[in-house]
Amino acid sequence: MNEGLNAGMVSMVAAGIGLLAATGLYIQVARKGVGNDRMKDIGEAIHLGAMTYLREQYIRIALFVMLVGVLLSFQYDMRMSGAFVFGAVSSAMAGFVGMKAATKANVRTTAAALNSNIAGALNVAFGGGAVMGLAVAAFGLLGLGLLFFLVGRPEDVQIIWGFSMGASSIAFFARVGGGIFTKAADVGADLVGKVEAGIPEDDPRNPGVIADNVGDNVGDVAGMGADIFESYVGGMVATMTIAATMSADDLIAMYGGELPSRLMEMASWFDIPVTAAGGVLVAQIMLMALPLLLSVAGLIASMCGIFGLRFFHKLGPEKALSSADMSTAAIFVVLTILVLAVFGYGWGILFAIIAGNIAGVLIGRVTSYYTGSKPVMKVAAASKTGAATNVITGIAVGFQSCSIPLLLIATATLVAYQSAGLYGIAISAVGMLATAGMTMTIDASGPISDNAGGIAEMAGLPENVRAVTDELDSIGNTTAATGKGFAIGSAALTALALFVAFKQAVQLHSSDLVTMEITDPRVVVGAFLGAIVVVLAASMTMNSVGKAAIEMVNEIRRQFREIPGLLQGVADPDTARCVAISTNAALREMVAPGLMAVTAPVIVGFFIGPEALGGMLMGSLIVGVVLALFMANAGGAWDNAKKFIERGEIAGERKGSDAHAAAVIGDTVGDPFKDTSGPAMNILVKLLSIVSLIIVPFIT
Amino acid sequence: MNEGLNAGMVSMVAAGIGLLAATGLYIQVARKGVGNDRMKDIGEAIHLGAMTYLREQYIRIALFVMLVGVLLSFQYDMRMSGAFVFGAVSSAMAGFVGMKAATKANVRTTAAALNSNIAGALNVAFGGGAVMGLAVAAFGLLGLGLLFFLVGRPEDVQIIWGFSMGASSIAFFARVGGGIFTKAADVGADLVGKVEAGIPEDDPRNPGVIADNVGDNVGDVAGMGADIFESYVGGMVATMTIAATMSADDLIAMYGGELPSRLMEMASWFDIPVTAAGGVLVAQIMLMALPLLLSVAGLIASMCGIFGLRFFHKLGPEKALSSADMSTAAIFVVLTILVLAVFGYGWGILFAIIAGNIAGVLIGRVTSYYTGSKPVMKVAAASKTGAATNVITGIAVGFQSCSIPLLLIATATLVAYQSAGLYGIAISAVGMLATAGMTMTIDASGPISDNAGGIAEMAGLPENVRAVTDELDSIGNTTAATGKGFAIGSAALTALALFVAFKQAVQLHSSDLVTMEITDPRVVVGAFLGAIVVVLAASMTMNSVGKAAIEMVNEIRRQFREIPGLLQGVADPDTARCVAISTNAALREMVAPGLMAVTAPVIVGFFIGPEALGGMLMGSLIVGVVLALFMANAGGAWDNAKKFIERGEIAGERKGSDAHAAAVIGDTVGDPFKDTSGPAMNILVKLLSIVSLIIVPFIT
Repeated sequence: MNEGLNAGMVSMVAAGIGLLAATGLYIQVARKGVGNDRMKDIGEAIHLGAMTYLREQYIRIALFVMLVGVLLSFQYDMRMSGAFVFGAVSSAMAGFVGMKAATKANVRTTAAALNSNIAGALNVAFGGGAVMGLAVAAFGLLGLGLLFFLVGRPEDVQIIWGFSMGASSIAFFARVGGGIFTKAADVGADLVGKVEAGIPEDDPRNPGVIADNVGDNVGDVAGMGADIFESYVGGMVATMTIAATMSADDLIAMYGGELPSRLMEMASWFDIPVTAAGGVLVAQIMLMALPLLLSVAGLIASMCGIFGLRFFHKLGPEKALSSADMSTAAIFVVLTILVLAVFGYGWGILFAIIAGNIAGVLIGRVTSYYTGSKPVMKVAAASKTGAATNVITGIAVGFQSCSIPLLLIATATLVAYQSAGLYGIAISAVGMLATAGMTMTIDASGPISDNAGGIAEMAGLPENVRAVTDELDSIGNTTAATGKGFAIGSAALTALALFVAFKQAVQLHSSDLVTMEITDPRVVVGAFLGAIVVVLAASMTMNSVGKAAIEMVNEIRRQFREIPGLLQGVADPDTARCVAISTNAALREMVAPGLMAVTAPVIVGFFIGPEALGGMLMGSLIVGVVLALFMANAGGAWDNAKKFIERGEIAGERKGSDAHAAAVIGDTVGDPFKDTSGPAMNILVKLLSIVSLIIVPFIT
Repeated sequence: MNEGLNAGMVSMVAAGIGLLAATGLYIQVARKGVGNDRMKDIGEAIHLGAMTYLREQYIRIALFVMLVGVLLSFQYDMRMSGAFVFGAVSSAMAGFVGMKAATKANVRTTAAALNSNIAGALNVAFGGGAVMGLAVAAFGLLGLGLLFFLVGRPEDVQIIWGFSMGASSIAFFARVGGGIFTKAADVGADLVGKVEAGIPEDDPRNPGVIADNVGDNVGDVAGMGADIFESYVGGMVATMTIAATMSADDLIAMYGGELPSRLMEMASWFDIPVTAAGGVLVAQIMLMALPLLLSVAGLIASMCGIFGLRFFHKLGPEKALSSADMSTAAIFVVLTILVLAVFGYGWGILFAIIAGNIAGVLIGRVTSYYTGSKPVMKVAAASKTGAATNVITGIAVGFQSCSIPLLLIATATLVAYQSAGLYGIAISAVGMLATAGMTMTIDASGPISDNAGGIAEMAGLPENVRAVTDELDSIGNTTAATGKGFAIGSAALTALALFVAFKQAVQLHSSDLVTMEITDPRVVVGAFLGAIVVVLAASMTMNSVGKAAIEMVNEIRRQFREIPGLLQGVADPDTARCVAISTNAALREMVAPGLMAVTAPVIVGFFIGPEALGGMLMGSLIVGVVLALFMANAGGAWDNAKKFIERGEIAGERKGSDAHAAAVIGDTVGDPFKDTSGPAMNILVKLLSIVSLIIVPFIT
């Protein structure tokens, strides 16, 4: 018999349905037309480039995964290694399926736009994104459900950490590698194409544009997917861990002070003796199962939202999306209340879940304010006095933009804790991420639309097609900003939850009372070391983009120089070579920061001890979240400041003016900020936490 | 009778000697010739502008000081208010004296350079700087010595906090106001003068150049002086506080496990009964007195170094300075060993002191590497592909440059703690700062030389004069980089010491055991709030520079437009107006961040409690130190990358090339980084700690 039987089964069934739905959507998207031959070729090149990169990346990561898997089997046992590999494979599968769909969807979105039908185009982009969204949620739920089914006992919870660690490993390489790929291509293509050769963005003569478009998929779709997958899994694992380490009193408190009689009845389901102790054990198992149940509710809600989008089409694309999103949230809350009522959980948990959910939504809104509203106007206006003031203002906006999200995270943490203790902090992360199916769908459809526009440009399609894709793209930009904010917020809450779980686990493995006082010098030293890891990761990833972009610049310059007729548009560029440069740079440059992130906590834990490691997690969490917000928002503000000027929203300025040139510089500075180093911070804070959790038994 | 009698008296006597020495140096400098009439006018204008600003600034701060003083007298008593006002006045006096000397010294340095005599010019610049250096140390020692003399009992230690809080208040306004003043003038003058009008830096036709030169004094001399004064005082106060809260066992451990018999003999000096308990009390008082004794040793060592410089002149200016600096350090160590031996302190304390001292020196070296060596070449080389890559590379260098200094701070903390417990952490900060007299002298002589060069340019003096001032300036740049690193390192250690003192004080005022666990949600929330204060301060100060620079740009543009013959060199610019703009902007813009820094800990302490406040101190410390290092070093790297190109050290590039233009943009971005927002971080982390310490009795 196994205690996790029920919740695990339910999760797997829900995940199965989610995967079926994803398959259905994939077939639907794949069946759409791809337009004319030129479009087909371009689409094929992007698809091929992305899948090639993904394959190469996975091969590299597989080596790492095997190595760590073997190490884990020595230190733990084969179950741990199995869970770890399983987590890595699940994340990779989600990324693979999602990318396949996304790269198929982009050219098909362009084709749908050929008929000037915005609803049709949105449907394709959204459908492609939904495959990714559902894959992320379903693979996560399938994996954790199965593990819970197999080893869902409090004493075996550490096996489940392996799954989370697997997800984190993939995520780090996917985010960092993807980020370097996309920005090397983007910066390189822009520097030579736009600045030197004076040809427009996405011009087919530019050898780097295919790489740039591949990069959008690799970074914004696969990278973001792995990031959300990691948070999705990490939040659940942290919650399970905290539940598994709770005392009987704490457990009973979670049910409002008295165990509901229903738990006793449920004991028999689980083959547990119907005694007081048995009731407490059931209570504990049910708290471990709750994140799964909530995620099932979130997946159902997401599917309702995804398939319900069609009913909102008459509202126009932007409102349709937000209505579908809101419906998902509403359905999730109703289902959550149902779950909590049926199983007799205390209502404090509900507040914690809602606190996480609201914080996630609001952080997204704040991000979209700072990267799309008044602050952006300030950055755009500052471009009039040159690039220096543009950059300074962008940095100031970036710093300022951190404060409200940090306040929201702090408030959610406090509310969650007041409502449901340490468990509340973890479950609030689950509450934020349960509807990741929908969030990820909207996130992924943004870059699909963006690429659809690029393909229209490259294929030389008429203005009216661009008008459709531009509208989708502009919606995509808003949702992308929101999505980035959400990714950071969820990473922060997930890392915090894992951090709390780490502390609990240390206590559980120690015979003495473990204190990690903030003035304990080991903690302080650890905190400084955590800050070091974060700034080094930021520096390394920015340098990598710089190096790779210079390689790209040299190759594009070479092609312009050596391929006769290229700039006149009578010869084709060698786009594959540029894709290869990005691919190789990404694969090469992702190694060092990855190794640092994995080894740093091990070194600190073994040589200075768990207190220092706790300090390291705290230091890296605070500095990492600050830099993640700063970089994402400064980058977003520069990007949109440039677009504001291009759209003529700054009096007296337009594309080609001095202010525009200044804004282009700011935008380029922001590229590695928002798409490489910033997102890397998200993963880094989670990865450090999960590695620390995994090594707890060996350092205490 | 009073226990603090002896150490307090000794300090005051040493301070008196220091002030006499400073007066002597001041008279020496003031007696030097000022050169021709043009030079005299320029020197007068700079002197007047700086003193006017300082007066206006002090008037504004006086209001703040009175208000806080009254509040403190309600909450504490008049002694506390008195100490607070006294601390503020002492810092202001040091700033006033130092500025007067510095602004007199710069034109006299130019005059000395007229004879192409580099040793003579260095002597004047160094003498001017030494007035500031000695004033900082002597006023600090005088104030704390007097207070220790009056209230040097363990139970009254909180009165001494007031002095530190007074010093911190002045420091924050001086640093932030000075930083905004100098960069508004610098950025404004450069944007119009160099970029738009195409005239050289320091050209007399530019209406902003006097303001720029005033700014160098206001920011780099007065601001830096207040910063070091604050650390100097803060480190001692933290040490006294920790000593005052120690248990008998801990006290005895500080003497190597057994109280030396000499302490018993000393009891009679202090009129303390010669009993075991009396011996412990003497031990405690002597640990409270140790920072004073060390600082006396440091002051003596500094005076030896300052007056010994003349013996090193034949080594050339750079080596002469470093030899004088090394001699100071060596004498300090010898005197320290003497002090420790005579009074029978345990030798663990020596290691803590040396750890702090070495960390300070090494952080300076690392800073000067990152802002003057290979990393700068990288930034300069990146300018070839444009401003964007210059900025990206500078930011990457900035992040990377944080790691070794953070590691050094962490190591010093760990060594100090291992050697002498929590007391060791605080005394290591004192060890780092004891020779502040010398450090500050070298720091202040840099901007004096820089200004001397500016005056030579403005007065149209011949090339050979510039050659002398340029050489001094280039030495000044190295020492400035080292000095900035030292300021950050000392701020970090001081803030950490105050943070530890805060925790001890909270425990002392609480009847229960107070724990500040890193996973306590209040601590976590506090840490996020601390990060918020830091990023907001960074954002506010950068925005202030931006706003003020735009005012300056408009005024300079107006003068070029409206004053006939200005650009032709036949009419004089209205430089006073530009000084007024910087003055007003600085005074206006320093208020908001100042109020935030003072009120934030009060709000958090009262509404969430001491645990959250502890978290806030930790969060602000980590994020603040990271940003301080990042900004100072990125800014320094950009500055020197531009200079490298100007000096022709990047093949194929020179002043006026595209790469140079790109480097100028980076340099301008770096201006508020390195001279406004970055330095503000130093003070912020200390100010937050001291305010928190002050409110301990009311929040526990």
